Amino acid sequence: MTIKISIDCMGGDHGPSVTIPAAISFVKHEPEAELILVGLEDVIRAELKKHKADTHPRLSVLHASEQVTMDDPLEVALRRKKDSSMRVAIEQVKSGVAQASVSAGNTAALMAVSRYVLKTMSGVDRPAICSILPNQKNGPTYMLDLGANVDCEPHHLHQFAIMGSVLVSAMEGIARPTIGLLNVGTEDIKGNEVVKLTSKLLQADHERGALNFYGNVEGNDIFKGTTDIVVCDGFVGNVTLKAIEGLARFMKDVLTSEFKRNPITMLGALIARGALKAIGNRLNPSRYNGASLLGLRGLVFKSHGSADAYSFEWALRRAFDAAKNDVQAHLASLIAELMPRTPVPDEPTSTSSTI
Amino acid sequence: MTIKISIDCMGGDHGPSVTIPAAISFVKHEPEAELILVGLEDVIRAELKKHKADTHPRLSVLHASEQVTMDDPLEVALRRKKDSSMRVAIEQVKSGVAQASVSAGNTAALMAVSRYVLKTMSGVDRPAICSILPNQKNGPTYMLDLGANVDCEPHHLHQFAIMGSVLVSAMEGIARPTIGLLNVGTEDIKGNEVVKLTSKLLQADHERGALNFYGNVEGNDIFKGTTDIVVCDGFVGNVTLKAIEGLARFMKDVLTSEFKRNPITMLGALIARGALKAIGNRLNPSRYNGASLLGLRGLVFKSHGSADAYSFEWALRRAFDAAKNDVQAHLASLIAELMPRTPVPDEPTSTSSTI
Repeated sequence: MTIKISIDCMGGDHGPSVTIPAAISFVKHEPEAELILVGLEDVIRAELKKHKADTHPRLSVLHASEQVTMDDPLEVALRRKKDSSMRVAIEQVKSGVAQASVSAGNTAALMAVSRYVLKTMSGVDRPAICSILPNQKNGPTYMLDLGANVDCEPHHLHQFAIMGSVLVSAMEGIARPTIGLLNVGTEDIKGNEVVKLTSKLLQADHERGALNFYGNVEGNDIFKGTTDIVVCDGFVGNVTLKAIEGLARFMKDVLTSEFKRNPITMLGALIARGALKAIGNRLNPSRYNGASLLGLRGLVFKSHGSADAYSFEWALRRAFDAAKNDVQAHLASLIAELMPRTPVPDEPTSTSSTI
Repeated sequence: MTIKISIDCMGGDHGPSVTIPAAISFVKHEPEAELILVGLEDVIRAELKKHKADTHPRLSVLHASEQVTMDDPLEVALRRKKDSSMRVAIEQVKSGVAQASVSAGNTAALMAVSRYVLKTMSGVDRPAICSILPNQKNGPTYMLDLGANVDCEPHHLHQFAIMGSVLVSAMEGIARPTIGLLNVGTEDIKGNEVVKLTSKLLQADHERGALNFYGNVEGNDIFKGTTDIVVCDGFVGNVTLKAIEGLARFMKDVLTSEFKRNPITMLGALIARGALKAIGNRLNPSRYNGASLLGLRGLVFKSHGSADAYSFEWALRRAFDAAKNDVQAHLASLIAELMPRTPVPDEPTSTSSTI
């Protein structure tokens, strides 16, 4: 069965020079994939030609005349650039032509445009952003929400847990992934009111076998790999993720500068360069590129803006796997099972998407 | 002028085997310091004797028969162990015998006992925990609250900013330290309601020259050193701090295991061992040991539980400097200037201390 993915080829720090080689490599490795390359047709065709892939039968080009930049305000992305590569790519999912869409563009814009074009799934109040972090067990820790929702009620966090559970189940082949609720301590009495009430909702689902709720986890559990999924509101998730990225960059800079300090340390680094490369790969694995925008009526994945072609290809892989494993249908089914019948009205939060 | 510091000698992972050598070294280096060593008298005297310091004129011993363990519930620390070394040390500050107290014990217990014994400063609703993180400018970033208050209103965050500003001013000799408000983006429209309202309070103080408010900062700004102080609620602060600690441990483990992988990488590590040590020192500087419990009627400092003697000595140094620079008087004066006259009643949050 062929799975079609639409790609916003203009998004990210590098645009077509990264997205096109990644697409070419991906169709070579994945015979079931068909890719729709969205953006400035001339630019895309030139890049395809450069890589001798302009006649590949599973690569098609779809022209879009505009482009959402990293600095565009949401209003511009939403209201003014109606023919942006980001939006046209997402519209392919809306119309059913593609089964998933991938962009390395501005996250806030991607979430806003995705919500606008695709709408939110029935039973879900607010979509969330779910990303993957490496852990000490050499596995992935899925974490959500990472910035789409800065003010959350218990039922929002509850829905994030359900969505995370379905995603991990489908992507990692884990029947009952464990869910941790991010908190300031592991005891039940710890935390603020929202977290305490969320814990009760998750505990109830756990007791009837619907979810595998581990309980509270702390910040360091993300990297210990205590649970498959860590649930938090978008404020905490965003701040934590950016602090982690900040520390990783700081450590990398310190490592580089200390190893370059004198000929002896440089020699040490030269001899140990295999180890240094392995360290980089373990701490920032390319295979973890590709955050999911969960809870929309269609699959959308977000690549890091600075991704290289190898890393962007992994985002394509994640989108492909999610579509192939039918994440949307599983989500709809578990949400219908676990959510109360009376929906809580959604608030307009289009400006609160932040990463 | 002599400054007296009371030390909970039994606290921390190592107790007197760390606290006593640190105390001995500190009085040797600091002629103005006088230390009150609180805990089991026999054990302390034996340790002093071992180091040939049992007759040092600026080291006195104060017996306390009990000890707060790392696992003691707050009720036990507060109500049952009334003769704990932690409590007796803090009582020395209360009675005016000591100008500051230092403990490496359980943070939640230390905050609860300090609040109970010392009470909260006039004009402050809730004490906060302020710690220091290293940054890329080779300086300290002060961050608060780190877990004492999991539910905060704008006026609480406002008070944290004032307290942080006074502390940095006194400790670092910076006349007008910059204050950043931790948020999910730098624009004014970003964040939840509490953060947005806090921003207005801080902006008003900035405009009349009372505080140096930089604006919103993001998680990665902690390590960039964008501002001297980063203000957040105790939930966000605690989760972020523990995530940072988790990543640092993960990175250290990866570094160690990759360098031990084979004889070649081991040789590289051996040659570059100076660099590896320097990396450790830059990322986890001992001189940053010693978190402040701010907003109490007396100075209390918390050392890392796992601190070694060298590192514990830095916590003593911080407590000494805070007392010598009269942080309490500066705090009282700035709070009186900036806080509204009608105090908001304090909520009982003794169980919400978390780190």
